Amino acid sequence: MPEYKLIYFNAKGRAELIRWIFAYGDIAYTDERIEWCDWPARKADIPGGKLPLLVVDDKTLPQSLAIARYLAKQAGLVPQDDLEAAFCDALADTLSEMMHEVYKIIFSPNDEEEKKRQRKEELFPNVISPILTRLNKQLEEREWLVSNEVTWADLMFGLVMGWLEKKDPEMLNGFPAIQQHVNKILALPKIKQWVEEQPDTAF
Amino acid sequence: MPEYKLIYFNAKGRAELIRWIFAYGDIAYTDERIEWCDWPARKADIPGGKLPLLVVDDKTLPQSLAIARYLAKQAGLVPQDDLEAAFCDALADTLSEMMHEVYKIIFSPNDEEEKKRQRKEELFPNVISPILTRLNKQLEEREWLVSNEVTWADLMFGLVMGWLEKKDPEMLNGFPAIQQHVNKILALPKIKQWVEEQPDTAF
Repeated sequence: MPEYKLIYFNAKGRAELIRWIFAYGDIAYTDERIEWCDWPARKADIPGGKLPLLVVDDKTLPQSLAIARYLAKQAGLVPQDDLEAAFCDALADTLSEMMHEVYKIIFSPNDEEEKKRQRKEELFPNVISPILTRLNKQLEEREWLVSNEVTWADLMFGLVMGWLEKKDPEMLNGFPAIQQHVNKILALPKIKQWVEEQPDTAF
Repeated sequence: MPEYKLIYFNAKGRAELIRWIFAYGDIAYTDERIEWCDWPARKADIPGGKLPLLVVDDKTLPQSLAIARYLAKQAGLVPQDDLEAAFCDALADTLSEMMHEVYKIIFSPNDEEEKKRQRKEELFPNVISPILTRLNKQLEEREWLVSNEVTWADLMFGLVMGWLEKKDPEMLNGFPAIQQHVNKILALPKIKQWVEEQPDTAF
């Protein structure tokens, strides 16, 4: 097994799925967390200037989803079947695009209030609800989202939907199969343990 | 081999990498192109309401990069080594993010002119140039971007950089290794043939 070091901010953000996969697969790693105040000094040494990064022995892999997919493979969370693996990838990209829209609202302090309010109002009916509707239907018919076993797409789903529900406790009302699936993922013993033990951070 | 149908607009856009991979791998497929005027009528029947989609026998896969990665595997364009495969994924995400910034300028007719001009001015030094600098250095030391053989990351690189150069013929000045790599990819016989034969579209 190579030596792994994950480099990110002291936050969940784009690294938390990676940490969940490490936890699920019981894979040892160094969880380096850069404090915001140290970032300007560190940024110049970071290839591409963006986090997270995964250091694998002497190689440095960027891009959160590329890192997650690679580690998911090591943790047995990528289906053997190519098309099933592709459905995991597609769901990860869809959830990532959805979160991009959510982040745009949360992390756009320069936006005018009117534009922000409008974006927030459009977010649920136009972006989130169509995805929830489709996935809820899918989960009524099957035990896991893509395969006969848990995949990294289920972990990402549990992380993202669990986070959205924390932000807005009524969001998953009307989507009982999603609610149930989130609970099931949060109850996976390794995930449950990590969520209980992880550092407490604002984001 | 399953039956493949690619559904997209009558445009290159997010489907062209997929078509390149089909061409490179000599894989038979139906290239369904929806005209803009027919899109409102078709959209309701499209799961998720977004294109491209790949129909694989009776299953429908969304998300352009998930489709590209899946087909790249069938075409022998994904490295066997997991970490090399991950570096392909990371590069694909980086190029996709870069193009997202480029598209924002091209396809934002509602933006005020001033904002558009500002975005355009910031695009090259802040977004494109750091990526070109890093990849140019990488290509000075190796024959292909990720592996000892051509991968789907090279194809995406050739497509994206070739497109940017067409938009701004001076863009790759100062990046001779990139220029050379783009030419090498465009000279791959199957790619060359596709580029010559493909339908002529505005985008």
